[in-house]
Amino acid sequence: MRIALDAMGGDYGSQELVAGAVQAVCEFGHQVVLLGDRQVLQEALARHRAQLDGCPSGSRLNHISIVPTTQVVGMDESPMEGVRRKKDSSIRVAFQLLHQGEVQGVVSAGNSGATLAAAVKEVGRLQGISRPGIAGIFPTLKKPLVVMDVGANVDCRPQHLYQFAVMATAFSRALFGIEEPRVGLLSIGEEGGKGNALVKGAHDLLSHSVLRYIGNVEGRDFFRGEVDVMVCDGFVGNICLKLSEGLAEALVAMLREELSKSLTSKVGYLLTKTAYANLRRRTDYAEYGGGPLLGVDGTGIICHGRSNATAIKNAIRVAAELVQNKMNDRILEMLVPAEPLSVAPDGV
Amino acid sequence: MRIALDAMGGDYGSQELVAGAVQAVCEFGHQVVLLGDRQVLQEALARHRAQLDGCPSGSRLNHISIVPTTQVVGMDESPMEGVRRKKDSSIRVAFQLLHQGEVQGVVSAGNSGATLAAAVKEVGRLQGISRPGIAGIFPTLKKPLVVMDVGANVDCRPQHLYQFAVMATAFSRALFGIEEPRVGLLSIGEEGGKGNALVKGAHDLLSHSVLRYIGNVEGRDFFRGEVDVMVCDGFVGNICLKLSEGLAEALVAMLREELSKSLTSKVGYLLTKTAYANLRRRTDYAEYGGGPLLGVDGTGIICHGRSNATAIKNAIRVAAELVQNKMNDRILEMLVPAEPLSVAPDGV
Repeated sequence: MRIALDAMGGDYGSQELVAGAVQAVCEFGHQVVLLGDRQVLQEALARHRAQLDGCPSGSRLNHISIVPTTQVVGMDESPMEGVRRKKDSSIRVAFQLLHQGEVQGVVSAGNSGATLAAAVKEVGRLQGISRPGIAGIFPTLKKPLVVMDVGANVDCRPQHLYQFAVMATAFSRALFGIEEPRVGLLSIGEEGGKGNALVKGAHDLLSHSVLRYIGNVEGRDFFRGEVDVMVCDGFVGNICLKLSEGLAEALVAMLREELSKSLTSKVGYLLTKTAYANLRRRTDYAEYGGGPLLGVDGTGIICHGRSNATAIKNAIRVAAELVQNKMNDRILEMLVPAEPLSVAPDGV
Repeated sequence: MRIALDAMGGDYGSQELVAGAVQAVCEFGHQVVLLGDRQVLQEALARHRAQLDGCPSGSRLNHISIVPTTQVVGMDESPMEGVRRKKDSSIRVAFQLLHQGEVQGVVSAGNSGATLAAAVKEVGRLQGISRPGIAGIFPTLKKPLVVMDVGANVDCRPQHLYQFAVMATAFSRALFGIEEPRVGLLSIGEEGGKGNALVKGAHDLLSHSVLRYIGNVEGRDFFRGEVDVMVCDGFVGNICLKLSEGLAEALVAMLREELSKSLTSKVGYLLTKTAYANLRRRTDYAEYGGGPLLGVDGTGIICHGRSNATAIKNAIRVAAELVQNKMNDRILEMLVPAEPLSVAPDGV
């Protein structure tokens, strides 16, 4: 198993990304190809020589390699334009390697729009999928929830939401081993008749699908763990993702402020530190490293910009699992029963 | 100042609603008219005789009255249908009293769709407003944030979002005294070009308005307190509202679980109880009682179904403040400079 890592993205720079790659190599035994500036990556890698040589299961020095690239699509750059123009960008070459079969998956913490654009350009869409998208993984009181789309497609039609449901179902199976994930349609009332025009159309399609569709779900259902897959357009999904992060941060900030107001509560906080650490672990985005890019003819993981080494390590693990569990084959199988919907790209 | 309270809605029943009305009468000196089943309300009121007679500023026994009604629009009933059919429903008669000038505002914790429908039927839309809606009040790290719409209008056009911005601005001024509220447009990227078709259209309108428009904001901006008014369609707004409630509850549930795992953390929790109580107070929906119904020719407050007496008391206070501060006049004044947009209802 060989995974390509775009080692030029992410808020913490190449050092952190390479550290994550080294952890993945040592822990899981996967091969990793780093893409980016030759000198930067060689220097970053040199610091990990001893660690790679002394992995518990033997030296892994030959498990990691560098494919030098000379360009980067920046975070603020127009994705389509950047990818089109920068032929030797780390993200574009990563998906070229995937197309050529040199690697089986790609992980990136860079510009997510550019990652999607590079994937579509180099490996293309999966047969029958009109719009690839990004799935997000949300912690809940029970099992993690897969939400799709979380930002790639802002104006959608019912068919797109139906396809998101198929893809996210296949992903939930491949990563979490849930054989029949419960699929909910994000809306503003539980009755099928409630919601906007998009949701009403999608409800009809999902009701007649082979998926385990449980109907409309609401904003309050994100964290209860009563649904495994939630479907929405990328505008709504992205707002929900960022609102969740923002609210969790705000609550922590408010609580910290309140806890620091008296000596008693400061002492109390010290005694409850383990509980907070456990809560942090349970809600840590780094556990899965990022969201999968679903609907392209290959495997890609889009990581959060502020991914640390652990997140990168886990993203590499997740990419490998999706390949091993043949997620894309499962998507194709599920699309077949809904023949009239698996129309050609742009024809929907 | 006389406010009508639909005393048949709410998860906790008429007892709780009447208790809230009594508090408002005693504390603020407003008059309250209770609408609902005569016997139920007389019994509920009888329990508060002594309290009303002994208000700090003298007896308020004559400040509260009952207007008996025989019907109720249920929580699961179709709002339009229910309001049309049930001519003697508490919510419809409440807005009739408003129309007749018998009361200056209406508060309801019942079916919010029915409250909106009854308001439009009895008092009508405010001149120039195409779609009345409901504003939500979110706690933030700084001042409260007003979000509109949080559920009344699911499929919107740019003009509707522009009008939401005008109405929410007037509300923010009237209730929080912010003279020039900063208005943000909820989207998925800060650049004006980012978002769906609706948001791009609204961005153009807001950019040329008299409002203090600061541009696109994201989901993470809900709780930072850097914006005073946030505009979105009712589908997105309702999901954000319920997601926020759900996430806060889930985090508390997870933390409680973690805190109960060891004796040390249990003791620690006891020492930090005040901090938690303060946090709860800072994020308590009851402080404003509910969200205003904006865009109808009168003043209405829609309360959360699970409103307690405190929430009802505060909703009555907020209704009176909106009347005193002539919020609707301010909306009309602001709509004037944007003449081409203040078209007739349904003409947009």
